[in-house]
Amino acid sequence: MSLIVQKFGGTSVADTERLRNVARIITDAYKAGNQVVAVLSAQGDTTDDLIEKAREINPEASSREMDMLLSTGEQISVSLCAMAIEAMGYPVISLTGWQSGVITNTVSGNARIKKVDTERIEAELNQKKIVIVTGFQGVDRNHDITTLGRGGSDTSAVALAAVLGADLCQIYTDVEGVYTADPRKVTGARKLDEVTYNEMLELATLGAQVLHNRSVELARKYNVKMEVLSSFTGHPGTKVKGVAKRMERSYISSVAKDKDIARIALIGVPNEIGTSFKVFSLLARNQVNVDIILQGIGHEEGKDICFTVAEKDLKKASELLIEQKEELRYSRLETNCDVAKVSVVGAGMINNPGVAATLFEALYDAGININMISTSEIKISVLVDKKDADQAVQAIHDRFFGM
Amino acid sequence: MSLIVQKFGGTSVADTERLRNVARIITDAYKAGNQVVAVLSAQGDTTDDLIEKAREINPEASSREMDMLLSTGEQISVSLCAMAIEAMGYPVISLTGWQSGVITNTVSGNARIKKVDTERIEAELNQKKIVIVTGFQGVDRNHDITTLGRGGSDTSAVALAAVLGADLCQIYTDVEGVYTADPRKVTGARKLDEVTYNEMLELATLGAQVLHNRSVELARKYNVKMEVLSSFTGHPGTKVKGVAKRMERSYISSVAKDKDIARIALIGVPNEIGTSFKVFSLLARNQVNVDIILQGIGHEEGKDICFTVAEKDLKKASELLIEQKEELRYSRLETNCDVAKVSVVGAGMINNPGVAATLFEALYDAGININMISTSEIKISVLVDKKDADQAVQAIHDRFFGM
Repeated sequence: MSLIVQKFGGTSVADTERLRNVARIITDAYKAGNQVVAVLSAQGDTTDDLIEKAREINPEASSREMDMLLSTGEQISVSLCAMAIEAMGYPVISLTGWQSGVITNTVSGNARIKKVDTERIEAELNQKKIVIVTGFQGVDRNHDITTLGRGGSDTSAVALAAVLGADLCQIYTDVEGVYTADPRKVTGARKLDEVTYNEMLELATLGAQVLHNRSVELARKYNVKMEVLSSFTGHPGTKVKGVAKRMERSYISSVAKDKDIARIALIGVPNEIGTSFKVFSLLARNQVNVDIILQGIGHEEGKDICFTVAEKDLKKASELLIEQKEELRYSRLETNCDVAKVSVVGAGMINNPGVAATLFEALYDAGININMISTSEIKISVLVDKKDADQAVQAIHDRFFGM
Repeated sequence: MSLIVQKFGGTSVADTERLRNVARIITDAYKAGNQVVAVLSAQGDTTDDLIEKAREINPEASSREMDMLLSTGEQISVSLCAMAIEAMGYPVISLTGWQSGVITNTVSGNARIKKVDTERIEAELNQKKIVIVTGFQGVDRNHDITTLGRGGSDTSAVALAAVLGADLCQIYTDVEGVYTADPRKVTGARKLDEVTYNEMLELATLGAQVLHNRSVELARKYNVKMEVLSSFTGHPGTKVKGVAKRMERSYISSVAKDKDIARIALIGVPNEIGTSFKVFSLLARNQVNVDIILQGIGHEEGKDICFTVAEKDLKKASELLIEQKEELRYSRLETNCDVAKVSVVGAGMINNPGVAATLFEALYDAGININMISTSEIKISVLVDKKDADQAVQAIHDRFFGM
């Protein structure tokens, strides 16, 4: 007998028919002899509707009261889902965050799970019940309801899987799993059977929002085996684990792009110690995240500092840098929104330095110019012109995954 | 400084504008130097909508899961109300049933409050906060959410007023208070400044659903001063208390009618000990409530037993009695739906036997026939033909309250 934690997102529980479908998936796992804990998000647009209601009354409502409001969304989902399972004749109970012992810190709206008192859940499992738990929420030491912020329900599921020692944490969503590239955009994109935690983390930062980073980090920390799969098709999905099986010829798992970035260049910065520090600490203090950084070695007349930021942060970053021009003593600021980042991710590339060369060759053959390059142990990102991004992804994908 | 508990029903908090209005009423009381605890129902049709959602999924959902679902309605109300008060710049916090320490028995769907742990509410009041509490709900010893059934929010408010030692429990609703008769139907009907708990209880059983009996019984038991008033007009309402001031000439407080009743007559029941017992225990076992009972002293050939039931129970009652005809040995069953009950209620009538005579005289003068009569210490009810009911109420009201 295995213990399985299943998580269902908002689209999977959006209406009565879908809730019944989720109830079938849950009871199928139960009938197969497993203990099942299901973690549910709020139905469809419920959370957005509640946020809209709150805005109407008070656009600056406290996060404490927002959490009080938003946490009702999952409570509705879990009770309705339990009713659907009752109708099928299986023993079931729904639990809120506080009932299931999810204790968080006191940061309303973006709380972190501190511990999970599993007593109640285990008691219900021992009574052979299916347990349906609200995702996204917990309770702090003051007995105030808290929510976990973005990706909260995934995090709830992984946390429960970790403390309960679950054999598998299945994340049911509206996609079939993790792909070698975006299947809507890239010809020949294939679903991966397995990816590593680290690959998943790199992919998430590239905008492939299949799983939220917090949940993957937690899964990696506690070695929780995850599976991403569709609640609609019932096909096997993609397993996320410490070591992933991969076809021999492919050292990378996926190609992705991010178009919502902008490049900033500071030309003619004094070639002194501490100039980079000044630039990047200024931006960090003002919550501007910097991605790829490229800095030449410089010469007597000065050096150039190039970096990318999210497109939405470009205006703010430019203003900050212009304000501090005298302090930073650069001669010219250049910005460029017509860029995109294309990345390949793969745990296999650590031991295969040829990956970068293959990538550069693919782009060269396609006649695509590379602006900047950044590498980590399992990721290579290149900056290309925005107009070339889709072609770049296809070219790279063809080279690595082509038949 | 006084402590005031205010309760607002579903229509009072139905939308953003009304919630803002409620926030103003609450903060006005706070600004006047009072400690304020407000108890809120779910918004408008929220509860009905949730029940409909549940029915769609499982018409026979367990009451445990129904409570889980329905309790979200008040949680939404209180958080939105707290946000409205935050927007006005006052310190406020919303609390669910379990957060505010409302402990109930384990009867889901119709729970009774066993105790209230006031620690949290008092701590928030001591921090000068306005406290907004969900009505209608609590938590049982298993940490399951329970709801209190019909009239639950009134009951929550009175229970909190009792344990907190509140100086006043205001029940805000969509009517101005308790009237001498239904103001939409009876010319000259006036709002009463005060009524006694007992009068209020008799009025509630007559279908004047201003306050639910449970809350009034609780208020009487713990001597909680109540006031029924409108959340829309801001006028003073009707106080409900142990002893009510009343104009000298009027021994009664109110005239009311109930048209949804039916009369059943068992003709020719054997004149033996135990026959009434058999009839009424049969009905009680089958959840049929009997109201007025009239039984002649009987003679050798047998006796007649007349009584009234709610119109909706007539079919069930008749079937039960027909099934048991051999056992009960009556000769004929007669039923009549064309009847209505008209009642006068007044604590003053205990010491004024003339009230009954005045009532009978008023009906005689109006040419209205009386079918049956039933009296309690503070109520006289007569059964009249349904077609005469409105005229009977007006005639009685004119006689007791006419100028």
